[in-house]
Amino acid sequence: FASSSPMDVTPRKYTDFPFVSAPHRNLMVDLVSTMENRLHSQLKPCVVPSDVQYYYTPNRDSHGSLYIRSGHTSSQVDFVLGSWIHCKLPTGGALNISSLSAYLNASTDAPNFLIELIQNSPTSLVFLLDLPPRKDLVLHPEYLQTFYENTRLESLRQTLEKLPEVQPYYSSALYIRCLTSPTSIMIRINTEGGGAGRMEEIIKDHVDPVAKEVLGIWLEQCACGHRTVDEEGKAYLERRDGLIKNKTIEIDIGSSFPRLFGPDIAGRVLEVIREVYNG
Amino acid sequence: FASSSPMDVTPRKYTDFPFVSAPHRNLMVDLVSTMENRLHSQLKPCVVPSDVQYYYTPNRDSHGSLYIRSGHTSSQVDFVLGSWIHCKLPTGGALNISSLSAYLNASTDAPNFLIELIQNSPTSLVFLLDLPPRKDLVLHPEYLQTFYENTRLESLRQTLEKLPEVQPYYSSALYIRCLTSPTSIMIRINTEGGGAGRMEEIIKDHVDPVAKEVLGIWLEQCACGHRTVDEEGKAYLERRDGLIKNKTIEIDIGSSFPRLFGPDIAGRVLEVIREVYNG
Repeated sequence: FASSSPMDVTPRKYTDFPFVSAPHRNLMVDLVSTMENRLHSQLKPCVVPSDVQYYYTPNRDSHGSLYIRSGHTSSQVDFVLGSWIHCKLPTGGALNISSLSAYLNASTDAPNFLIELIQNSPTSLVFLLDLPPRKDLVLHPEYLQTFYENTRLESLRQTLEKLPEVQPYYSSALYIRCLTSPTSIMIRINTEGGGAGRMEEIIKDHVDPVAKEVLGIWLEQCACGHRTVDEEGKAYLERRDGLIKNKTIEIDIGSSFPRLFGPDIAGRVLEVIREVYNG
Repeated sequence: FASSSPMDVTPRKYTDFPFVSAPHRNLMVDLVSTMENRLHSQLKPCVVPSDVQYYYTPNRDSHGSLYIRSGHTSSQVDFVLGSWIHCKLPTGGALNISSLSAYLNASTDAPNFLIELIQNSPTSLVFLLDLPPRKDLVLHPEYLQTFYENTRLESLRQTLEKLPEVQPYYSSALYIRCLTSPTSIMIRINTEGGGAGRMEEIIKDHVDPVAKEVLGIWLEQCACGHRTVDEEGKAYLERRDGLIKNKTIEIDIGSSFPRLFGPDIAGRVLEVIREVYNG
């Protein structure tokens, strides 16, 4: 894809997922369309500048896409953020990261949604899927019960945990670990024995249905459920949500993006993310 | 040990750990004595009634011990609580649980200490070791940095994770999962292939040194370190610590104890625990 001729870079958009396997792409495309169909009238169109909706390095080694749709004032959705990157690795392989997240605003305290697939080879996948809580679960057991104990999230986590190719994944950043729910799926899938075919099979038969069920739970019970939040609760959510976004940029994208795309592109992309993060 | 003659039940105390392997017993005895030597003058003597310091079922199938030392008013230590139980299983084997925990009071917000070894066969061990945080780490990244990032806790966690016999352990109670730090060690060690000898080796060579290092970190930086807590902070800690203790009794010991020891013994033991939990 990273052609030698400077002229023929095909323009790409977020929902193309042009560099990943069919099951990986199909999963992401289905999730985006399910989310957009359900939230439909609640979301504004994507107004991300075209050179951030799709961007690539001058040598064409790294490509990326950012997609953001903010919620209307009447919606509980703050914004939906989708992203993929594709970066050639010095080893000859490539790093592909696809993600889709949805943040709710302070009119509800219901959990957010997050999915991320990180592949640095056709036989290795880090898979993150969670409804990150927006309150301290230790102090709010009734919140834990509503969103995590009374849903199927734990049994969905267990179905993936049981696969022999699955190992737990620990983010190297301790702060990122603190953001997850007790039913979060944070796993590393390794199919070196079975090859790329086995990885595609696992994504299609196991990752795909679990991700769709979790998104379904989030859409029904979080994005479209009703919660009462008083003024004090709103202030708490705004403080907590804001802190998380700032720390996440600092730890996660803030350090890796400049390394992968250089300071100019990284600056452009991060500015758009910061803008939507800060409302 | 559970002799057929009803007369010859040798009286046992907490530090005897009479039913477990030598490396398991040595580890627990060393931890208790290290903790007591370091905290020495801060701790009151154990005043647990003798029929709770050591208790057993009428048929001698289940034995247990509880050991509690409260901190003096001038100490940052609320109390130290040690316990072991030994229960014959219908399968012919036995369940052995050894634990030692230490709770700080609201004059400091530093983490508590917890170690627990759960063996339901000589080749299977669930090992829990953590400094459970006393604040929401998401809202307090500087607290995360002080106690978890700036210490060796993560590298200690990783040394055990690397052993081929080690798998992650998930408590079936989601609330219990929420109480742990991001560097908590919650693992299941299985040595079916290598037998009981390999388990004893792992406890001696791997579990033992890691547990001692973690206790050392806790003693220096938590129990004997200095933290400033204002009145609002104290009220928060008291509320959070209290809620955790109540939920833990309800979920963990409150349901398993009556099942293992019958309602009378369980009532006696739980009353003593509730008393120290409620200050």
